[in-house]
Amino acid sequence: MKNKYVAGVDIGGTTVKLGIFNLDGKLLNQWNIVTDKDYTAEKLLLSIEDSIKLFMQDRSMNINDLQAVGMGVPGSVDETGIVTYAPNIRWRMFDAAGFLSEKLNIPVAVQNDANVAAFAELKCGSGIGKSSICLLTLGTGVGGGIVLNNKIITGFSGCGGEIGHITVNPHEKTACGCGRYGCLEQYASATGIARLASDFMSESDGQSALFSYENVTAKEVFDCVKSGDKLAVDIAEKFGDILGRALSNIACLFNPQIFVIGGGVSKAGDIVIHYIQKYFNKYAYSDCVNTEFSIASLGNDAGIYGGAYLALSQLSV
Amino acid sequence: MKNKYVAGVDIGGTTVKLGIFNLDGKLLNQWNIVTDKDYTAEKLLLSIEDSIKLFMQDRSMNINDLQAVGMGVPGSVDETGIVTYAPNIRWRMFDAAGFLSEKLNIPVAVQNDANVAAFAELKCGSGIGKSSICLLTLGTGVGGGIVLNNKIITGFSGCGGEIGHITVNPHEKTACGCGRYGCLEQYASATGIARLASDFMSESDGQSALFSYENVTAKEVFDCVKSGDKLAVDIAEKFGDILGRALSNIACLFNPQIFVIGGGVSKAGDIVIHYIQKYFNKYAYSDCVNTEFSIASLGNDAGIYGGAYLALSQLSV
Repeated sequence: MKNKYVAGVDIGGTTVKLGIFNLDGKLLNQWNIVTDKDYTAEKLLLSIEDSIKLFMQDRSMNINDLQAVGMGVPGSVDETGIVTYAPNIRWRMFDAAGFLSEKLNIPVAVQNDANVAAFAELKCGSGIGKSSICLLTLGTGVGGGIVLNNKIITGFSGCGGEIGHITVNPHEKTACGCGRYGCLEQYASATGIARLASDFMSESDGQSALFSYENVTAKEVFDCVKSGDKLAVDIAEKFGDILGRALSNIACLFNPQIFVIGGGVSKAGDIVIHYIQKYFNKYAYSDCVNTEFSIASLGNDAGIYGGAYLALSQLSV
Repeated sequence: MKNKYVAGVDIGGTTVKLGIFNLDGKLLNQWNIVTDKDYTAEKLLLSIEDSIKLFMQDRSMNINDLQAVGMGVPGSVDETGIVTYAPNIRWRMFDAAGFLSEKLNIPVAVQNDANVAAFAELKCGSGIGKSSICLLTLGTGVGGGIVLNNKIITGFSGCGGEIGHITVNPHEKTACGCGRYGCLEQYASATGIARLASDFMSESDGQSALFSYENVTAKEVFDCVKSGDKLAVDIAEKFGDILGRALSNIACLFNPQIFVIGGGVSKAGDIVIHYIQKYFNKYAYSDCVNTEFSIASLGNDAGIYGGAYLALSQLSV
């Protein structure tokens, strides 16, 4: 099994991240290429194929030793593996795995990028040694991925794990990016926390360090929480109440072994988990209260790691 | 493959339902035995083993032609198949499948009874021909089962599909049977609908046929809805809003192909689905709006059918 490889590919709207791994899942090399917006789906995959071949050739790796490829894409992938819709790269109903597999003549697996990241955290990140995980990435939006008993939950038409768009407040008056009202993303993303801060500040007496910032960000909210700022703590409590309750409902439905929190907001560290877990414990069904929580550990490399482990899972079928 | 059989077993708190099926999943015979409350877990399983052997012997069926058994139990079953807790029959951390499999020397599978019922509706009920289903049984409580890509979602410690206990109203003042507040079960079960009716009636002007009943039940609410009673319609709208929103969130997370509604409340028929689907469509994430809805079709036999299909799935592994 020496000198055999798999590739992990993370297709984003601006960059494709690529990594070559050995069969133990160890990252050997990684690089990026630009996502050419003018390319068709087929042309983008051919450019990825070329890039992998060239990269391996330059390093005296034999392309015939590449055993499988796993890819994450920014869109919905249905339970048969078809990319149903990926708006940022303009793919619709495309069998990306089938196309690349035929070109390379090896197994290729494709999944939604957030689900791939969850798979990575389970296999070699904060969920290592566990069998099930729910990953939330709190960034501009709220992304999510769920893996149960080592299988990614895609859902019938590929909406599995769209945690950011569960309705948590049917009385919300401001629309979410998706056009609906009261999505989790409107309160628990970095943008959502900044919005909560703005709402709380407009009704406060002005006694808070938050007023020294021009436009308060999620980072500044948690910085102020750490220094004991009362208004910032109130915002964190509200964030924790909404997200903790949403996760308690997910626990009732899926019962994962661990919740892992990633994305920009998670950089504030364990204080974020403190407020989520406080309210999770308040709302959780008794059999779920022991669910673990952790901050994500793979950062921007989660996509290529998850791709590699997807590829490895193709080999063990 | 002629004259080969599987058994489906549905263990309830008062009765054990049993069925003998052929390998096409056709029910050949069914019978019940009493669940002896004084029996240990082992003794109850031995009585089930005896009952199956005796029943087959009496009908000149060869016990050696029994190929596998599938069982539903009224409790949590973790992802390794261990019954972690089944309060009604006082089982804790019991490997029921392992125990019975050793006695009969054939494969035995065990799952939570609501999950088994969902599996049955998928395989030979209202979800036939589909790959994923979410079953809700609206009875005294709200039970639930989820099957995705033909696999039952058990969850890590066996709470998968505990749909009745997701928190839908954090402001509720009356406690649910589970000790928490605002569970779906408090509004969407038969009991919950009766409670909603009582709340609406106490604030109404008395102009409703519902006032002619001593204690209004869910059945009477839907009977009055059918005859256009305004107050009954208001209650049905509230029920639909709460349950439809809960299911829209489940669709975001799991994205099943079909929701199937069973239990006593479902006997009111398509009018129940009308009010659920109206609000589901209001709240659902765009990619999930085509999720189908149907009334359950297997009734009280869902347990033995699901058990039989679980048994059959053991044979095809």
